[in-house]
Amino acid sequence: MHTVNNTNLNNVGFVSVSDMLSLLQHIGTEAFLLGLVEYLEQDYLRWELFDKSPRFASHSTDGVIELMPTSDQQQFSFKYVNGHPKNTRIGLQTVTAFGVLADVQSGYPLMLSEMTILTALRTAATSAMMAKYLAPKEAKTMAMIGCGAQSEFQILAFKVILGINQVRIYDIDRTAMLKCQQNLANQGLDIILCDSAHEVVKGAEIITTCTADKRNATILTSDMVQDGVHINAIGGDCPGKTELEAALLLRADVFVEYEPQTRIEGDIQQLDSSFVVTEMYKVIRGDRKGRSFAAQLTIFDGVGFAIEDFSALRYVHDLIKQQSSHQQLELLTNQANPRDLFGLLTPATQATRLVVGA
Amino acid sequence: MHTVNNTNLNNVGFVSVSDMLSLLQHIGTEAFLLGLVEYLEQDYLRWELFDKSPRFASHSTDGVIELMPTSDQQQFSFKYVNGHPKNTRIGLQTVTAFGVLADVQSGYPLMLSEMTILTALRTAATSAMMAKYLAPKEAKTMAMIGCGAQSEFQILAFKVILGINQVRIYDIDRTAMLKCQQNLANQGLDIILCDSAHEVVKGAEIITTCTADKRNATILTSDMVQDGVHINAIGGDCPGKTELEAALLLRADVFVEYEPQTRIEGDIQQLDSSFVVTEMYKVIRGDRKGRSFAAQLTIFDGVGFAIEDFSALRYVHDLIKQQSSHQQLELLTNQANPRDLFGLLTPATQATRLVVGA
Repeated sequence: MHTVNNTNLNNVGFVSVSDMLSLLQHIGTEAFLLGLVEYLEQDYLRWELFDKSPRFASHSTDGVIELMPTSDQQQFSFKYVNGHPKNTRIGLQTVTAFGVLADVQSGYPLMLSEMTILTALRTAATSAMMAKYLAPKEAKTMAMIGCGAQSEFQILAFKVILGINQVRIYDIDRTAMLKCQQNLANQGLDIILCDSAHEVVKGAEIITTCTADKRNATILTSDMVQDGVHINAIGGDCPGKTELEAALLLRADVFVEYEPQTRIEGDIQQLDSSFVVTEMYKVIRGDRKGRSFAAQLTIFDGVGFAIEDFSALRYVHDLIKQQSSHQQLELLTNQANPRDLFGLLTPATQATRLVVGA
Repeated sequence: MHTVNNTNLNNVGFVSVSDMLSLLQHIGTEAFLLGLVEYLEQDYLRWELFDKSPRFASHSTDGVIELMPTSDQQQFSFKYVNGHPKNTRIGLQTVTAFGVLADVQSGYPLMLSEMTILTALRTAATSAMMAKYLAPKEAKTMAMIGCGAQSEFQILAFKVILGINQVRIYDIDRTAMLKCQQNLANQGLDIILCDSAHEVVKGAEIITTCTADKRNATILTSDMVQDGVHINAIGGDCPGKTELEAALLLRADVFVEYEPQTRIEGDIQQLDSSFVVTEMYKVIRGDRKGRSFAAQLTIFDGVGFAIEDFSALRYVHDLIKQQSSHQQLELLTNQANPRDLFGLLTPATQATRLVVGA
C-alpha cells in the first residue's frame, strides 16, 4: 500500500480492524462503553431530529444484507451489515459490518470504519443503556442465554453500566460457554455455567437472550420467568426470527427502539399490531415511565436501529481526532477545478499524478 | 499507512482514485468504455434477475445523499453518491461517489471502489449504449449542452461507441467550454464552440443535455428540435430538476431505465403518469423497437440506475483480478473461531496482533 502525498486527492479517515483494536486498547474497553452510552443517550434525547426509516434489507437463501441510513441534518451515516447464520460452518462471521459518517452540507464522506467490532460494542451499550431505565434497581445477577460473538460484550456492558457482578451463562454448545468464561476470566465477575435454559434463569434479575438461529424459536417460555425481572431480548431481530414465547410478551411491558422496524423484525412480530409497546426515546426523555414498580416484568425487544450506529460512528469520529488510530483513504478526487474531472485522465496530468500509482 | 500481514484479518480489495487512474491508463479510456458497454448490455439482458427499487435519497437544504443498492442473487452492490450543486463555489465536486461489491452467499464485501470517476464513465457508457438503439444510423454530429464534469466523458463515449466525429458544444460559462475543448484536443474530434443553445443544436443528429442546476429549467424547447433527432437527456435526474420542455417530450418517443424511478426523477416527472414510456431493457433484449423510422424523434430520459453501478463495479472487480491497480483494506475481522469476536480484544491476543497497529 503506497503513501499518498498529493494535493489533487481528497482523503477520508479510515478506521481498520487493527485501528479499532488499538483505539480500544488505548482507551480501555470499559471506558469506551461508558463514553458510547453517553453518545447514545445524547442522540436518543434528540430523536425527533433524525430521518428514520426501517432498514433496507436484501434477503437471499442463506442470509440478508442490510443498509441502515440515518441523518440528523448535520451528519449522515449508514451501516452495511450482513447476517448469515451458516457462515460459521465455513469459518466466517455470522455478522460483518462497516459504516460511513458523512457531512450533510457538502455530501462528502468523512470517515469509513470497520463496524464488526463496533456493532458488537454498540449493541451491548444500547442494551445496557436501556436496562438503566428498565432493570430492577441494584440488580447484581444476569442470566445469559447464547454465548456467541455478542455475549461477552453484553456481559461487560452490564457490568460497567449497571454493576452486574454475577453472570449465569448457558449455550447448547458447551465450548461456547467455556470460551465466554475464559474471555471474561479477569473481569471481577462471578461466572456460573449452567446446563439448561431453565437452570440459567434461576435467581437472575436480568435475563439476556442472544441466540442466532434464523427461525422462530422459543428460548424463553412464560413459566420460566418470575415477575420483577427485566428481559433484554436481542436475538430476535429479523422477520421469522424470534426467541420469546408470545405468552411471555403478553404478560410484560414491552419497550422498543423504533416501533415500525420492531413490528417487522422484533419478538413482537408474533403479536397483533394493536399490542401496545413504548418507544425508548420517550422513556429516556422522561415523557414515559420505564420501570415503575418492583413486580413489573419489563422486556426490551431490541433489534438494532440506525441511530445507534450513527452514535457509534460519531463517537469514533470524535475519538480519532485526538488519537493516531486511523489512516487516510484516497477515496475522493479533489482536482483544482471541480468541473474538470476528465482532466485527471489526460496524459499531462497523469504524468505528474501517477508516480504514486501501483 | 502500514502494511498488514496478519492471517487474523480479512481484507477487502480497494480501488482508490489513483488506482482507478492507473487502471484507465493501463487499459486506455476508450477500451475501458468499450468493455463497460459490454458489461452493461449483459446486465440489461438479464434485467429480471435483479432486485430493483428506487434509490434511497436523504434530501437536505443544499443537496442530496443517495444509496443505490441492487443484487442479481450472486452479487450485491451499492453506491453512495451525493449531489450538491453549490459545492463548486467552495472548490468541491458537485458529485462524489464510492461503491461496494459484495458476495451474496456469505454477505462479505469483496471490493470498495472510488466511483466519482467510475460514475462519470458508467453514465457516459450507458448513454452511448442506449444511443446504439435510438440514434439515427451513421450519426456523425452531436450537440452538447452543458460542459461540466460529465461532458467530456459523454463525448468520448459517443465517439468510441457510435463513431461521432463532430461535436458542437455550449455552456453559459465560456471557461467550461474551453476546458472541454482543451481536454478533448487530441481525440480526433472536430469541436465547435457555440454561443447559444439555439445555435449548438443546428445540424446535430444527437443532442445531449447535461446541465447541473437543481431546478426545473428549460434547456431545450420543442421548436429548437427537428424530427429525426435523438436526445440524450441526462441532467434532469432528481425531483424538481428537469431540462426539457414538456411539449418536446409529448412529441417524442421516450425511453427510460427503470420506470418507477424515472417517473420521480426524470424529465417525465412533468407529465402525467399515463404518458407511455419504454424501458430500455426491452429494447436491448429485442422485445420492443428502438428507432424504427428516420423521422422519429427519440429521447433517452436518463437518471442513472443501480444496475449500471453494479455493472461498473463487476467490470472493475474482474479487471483488478488481472491488474495490480488495487490495494487491500483491513475492513473485516477473521479470527480462527467466528464466535470468538471478543477474543480479539483480550490482552493475550492483542499482544500478538497489535504489533501492526499505529
